[in-house]
Amino acid sequence: MRIRIDVDLEKGAILRTDLPENAIWLGGRALAESLLFEEVPPACHPLGPRNLLVFAPGLFAGTSMPTASRMSVAAKSPLTGGIKESNVGGMAGMILAQLGVGAVVIRGISLSRRSNLVLLGKRSAEVMDAPELSGLGNYETVETLKKRFGEDVVTITIGPCGEMKMAAATIAVSDNNGRPCRHAGRGGLGGVMGSKGLKAIVIDPKGSQLRKGADPGAFAEAIKEYTKILQSSKRTAFWRENGTAGLVDVSHARGSLPTRNFTSGAYDKKDKVNAEQLKTLAAQRKGMMGHACMRGCVVRCSNVFNDPQGRYLTSGLEYETIAMMGPNLDIDDLDTIAQMDHRCDDYGIDTIETGATLGILTETDLFRFGDGLKAVQLIDEIGKGTVLGRVLGQGVTTTGKVFGISRIPAVKGQSLAAHEARSIKGLGVTYATSPQGADHTAGFVVEEPLSKEGHADRSRKAQINVVVADSLGLCQFTGLREEHELFARLMGPLTGKAPSPEEVRRMGQETLWKERTFNQVAGIGSGQDRLPEFMRSEALPPNNNVFDVEEEDLDRVFGDYPK
Amino acid sequence: MRIRIDVDLEKGAILRTDLPENAIWLGGRALAESLLFEEVPPACHPLGPRNLLVFAPGLFAGTSMPTASRMSVAAKSPLTGGIKESNVGGMAGMILAQLGVGAVVIRGISLSRRSNLVLLGKRSAEVMDAPELSGLGNYETVETLKKRFGEDVVTITIGPCGEMKMAAATIAVSDNNGRPCRHAGRGGLGGVMGSKGLKAIVIDPKGSQLRKGADPGAFAEAIKEYTKILQSSKRTAFWRENGTAGLVDVSHARGSLPTRNFTSGAYDKKDKVNAEQLKTLAAQRKGMMGHACMRGCVVRCSNVFNDPQGRYLTSGLEYETIAMMGPNLDIDDLDTIAQMDHRCDDYGIDTIETGATLGILTETDLFRFGDGLKAVQLIDEIGKGTVLGRVLGQGVTTTGKVFGISRIPAVKGQSLAAHEARSIKGLGVTYATSPQGADHTAGFVVEEPLSKEGHADRSRKAQINVVVADSLGLCQFTGLREEHELFARLMGPLTGKAPSPEEVRRMGQETLWKERTFNQVAGIGSGQDRLPEFMRSEALPPNNNVFDVEEEDLDRVFGDYPK
Repeated sequence: MRIRIDVDLEKGAILRTDLPENAIWLGGRALAESLLFEEVPPACHPLGPRNLLVFAPGLFAGTSMPTASRMSVAAKSPLTGGIKESNVGGMAGMILAQLGVGAVVIRGISLSRRSNLVLLGKRSAEVMDAPELSGLGNYETVETLKKRFGEDVVTITIGPCGEMKMAAATIAVSDNNGRPCRHAGRGGLGGVMGSKGLKAIVIDPKGSQLRKGADPGAFAEAIKEYTKILQSSKRTAFWRENGTAGLVDVSHARGSLPTRNFTSGAYDKKDKVNAEQLKTLAAQRKGMMGHACMRGCVVRCSNVFNDPQGRYLTSGLEYETIAMMGPNLDIDDLDTIAQMDHRCDDYGIDTIETGATLGILTETDLFRFGDGLKAVQLIDEIGKGTVLGRVLGQGVTTTGKVFGISRIPAVKGQSLAAHEARSIKGLGVTYATSPQGADHTAGFVVEEPLSKEGHADRSRKAQINVVVADSLGLCQFTGLREEHELFARLMGPLTGKAPSPEEVRRMGQETLWKERTFNQVAGIGSGQDRLPEFMRSEALPPNNNVFDVEEEDLDRVFGDYPK
Repeated sequence: MRIRIDVDLEKGAILRTDLPENAIWLGGRALAESLLFEEVPPACHPLGPRNLLVFAPGLFAGTSMPTASRMSVAAKSPLTGGIKESNVGGMAGMILAQLGVGAVVIRGISLSRRSNLVLLGKRSAEVMDAPELSGLGNYETVETLKKRFGEDVVTITIGPCGEMKMAAATIAVSDNNGRPCRHAGRGGLGGVMGSKGLKAIVIDPKGSQLRKGADPGAFAEAIKEYTKILQSSKRTAFWRENGTAGLVDVSHARGSLPTRNFTSGAYDKKDKVNAEQLKTLAAQRKGMMGHACMRGCVVRCSNVFNDPQGRYLTSGLEYETIAMMGPNLDIDDLDTIAQMDHRCDDYGIDTIETGATLGILTETDLFRFGDGLKAVQLIDEIGKGTVLGRVLGQGVTTTGKVFGISRIPAVKGQSLAAHEARSIKGLGVTYATSPQGADHTAGFVVEEPLSKEGHADRSRKAQINVVVADSLGLCQFTGLREEHELFARLMGPLTGKAPSPEEVRRMGQETLWKERTFNQVAGIGSGQDRLPEFMRSEALPPNNNVFDVEEEDLDRVFGDYPK
């Protein structure tokens, strides 16, 4: 039986209860969003006392299934004003699950308002003051925690951006090397954590046990099959060799690489920021490709990026960061991008949102394309919380408001990710309609990318499949999306009760429906299921396409939705 | 036949057409909102090229009816993201109507982007460059325009806040003395005007003619009756004697005077900022009470406030400004408040929104209660457009976002006005449900102010009645709200076609329905029909009431709405 840990920061109280029987197949996103749906008033202020912050390892987390221990972090988002699930790798999902934890729910606002920590162990849980952590970056925070609690702790932390309750603040999870560089990046969940006065969750792994399932033999058999599929996949080999940076060339080639504030889909200097360049620097500087963010991953898409002196700078330098801070800002230098990434990781701010924000700032005199030095300075302002920094830390939509900019690459307040909707129109439908706001991980649709037809059904299906993967703890880079029959065969021996493949799919569908309903009650009408206007009027080179999916088709994604 | 003037700033073209036959009874808000409903895509960006800015004199404007020449200004709002009508006095409504103009529609964005003006005359209309006006305050802008076009022009202008496209920027209309001190204050319509590159509309009154109606004799008879009601009303006498400042004592007594960032409904130092004090200073300094913002007004609620040296400072110093910048900020000095008001008028920023914004800023270290000097400095930052100023100029909701504040006195992004919803619960229902966002002029309900019952029907009725008044050009201080039979008797001889009283009411209802529908298509769901959370949890002294109207009752206002 998995347990649920409720931490009430106002009262300093912790409650451990069993997850209910009907949650037997629920983990990750499905579990977290169900808790929010049932327990958070949708109209509450995201930074107020009635919001909850939920951490839920995927259902498969903590088992010997590789690449399957991701964790969902969820709350009402200060960025979108709607429900938010941000999915993260690193070690927290695995170890929490191996301690028997199905969900950690943070509620209330600490009366002291800042710098508490929660220490979670096999049988204990405790709220502690931690004034010494106040204002520290994620890296120093984690170093301090390790000195206090031991080198082997797993950490969940926020940087100063989260403490300042910024709407683009992240939550950092320590990786396989104990570094706080895997981020629940999107939707400002770090701001929610900060609003509660929680700086860190420290997980003591002592007593953690591999989850072998209700029927260990059958489960081990099913895992073998799963692992074989994963290991034999060409995709796995591609990610391991190139990291996510392999997408720079792919996106450039299909014209979907956001360039110079979303005015082009191809970048003339892409060879200076692509996977080849990353691999060259990794070899020269004793960095690493094929790094695993969590123990036992077979995909290993992460990397370790060192500076010219060979000192650790970031891990990993990912495609989304490279694209949004490189081509999108016309910064053609991986060292500068890595400096920006390091700072974002340390301050705890979303690199996607920040890249988009600096992009629109080129419409003011505060920033111009290609000015890497200034970009780094502006990120430092975010970390310091100057007035300008606080504006930028709210992301692209608020920054646009403040500076009177109307060409904003965002949906429902959240910036588009590093995949151009005009060149991947099916993904554009997901950007527009996902309850999560514009999010490339909410249901990527690559079919017929330049056609305007047929994407409503594809997007709906992709969004449901993603919810399933996010709920099971599966990394999207497993490439397993529609294998509900395989998932069912894994879930049965793990939980002791076998679902049908249709029940697996329906778990995804029902979760998506709850997210949608939460947003509607929060006041987000379907009129917000739209891409930014400029994408319908500005043709994007090199394909010279506008986003022309009919609005009726956008409305069909949920309009045709089975209740 | 009234005409419609379409000004396309992108093309520099002007089109004059007759208003259609079916607009015969439509003026002001009904006409403006219908135009927006039909011609603006609700999902467009408020500062983008597809938004329209409409000026529409009320139906009675330009006739000899006193206190009946108000004008509606309307657009999609950058503050609320929904449709917006802001109703304004001064001389523009009267003179436009006397030139035969039913509506001026501004479209497109000037290619030069800033400081154009439109010169409107009896038979001519012209777009002109006006680079010399760029960055000027409203007062200097109008002085410059008078030098160029003559002392008797009527002006519609924006200050630097509008040019900077701030979401709380106003549009200033010159008053009976040619001063730009009557403002279409709410919803950031000045930002829309600025986004189009339009600094000023100059109306040349030459050839303007009193509108005598299709049946002048019958119309004059009906006007006599209307005027008699108005002149014999006790309310009229109250407003003329005290100005709107008379409400300071009234609000204090009923516990509805926003004090210290909406933490009290009564102000211990109210005697230093009330009407008695205003009258004393007016007498001492050769100011004026009983000032008429438009020619021929019998209510004359405005005033002229001079500084201690007897120099003109503002006209008028109104209740909303006094309350939001006085008690709400614990500034107990009319001279300081008048300095703040003068600056807001000159820069072109809403005093209500700005007062609420400085109120929440007391949660940061940037401002503290009672610091009048700092308040003036902060308003100067808004006018100058420093980064902090640009934040504050977006109003209370964006400022709250930037500084991570969750206790925000706003609905649909617009700050509450100077009437506490916890002590006037019927008005709270209007604040929550009005398509205009929290707005005291959207349907004031005073009945049973502390009861939680019965307000849905009252608010719906009040909102409809207000639309009627706003459409006819009637000042709300006429106190005439439900007299649809009288209005019908005036409309018949004016237009040549008599409506039934029910048709008058239905015009209001249908306009309100269009506003609501526009917002829904724009993505503003009914979940946004809510007051801020803190009003349900914090009891307000001295009545110690929370806002406890059931959410079902809020939803009934439009839920029971006849389609």
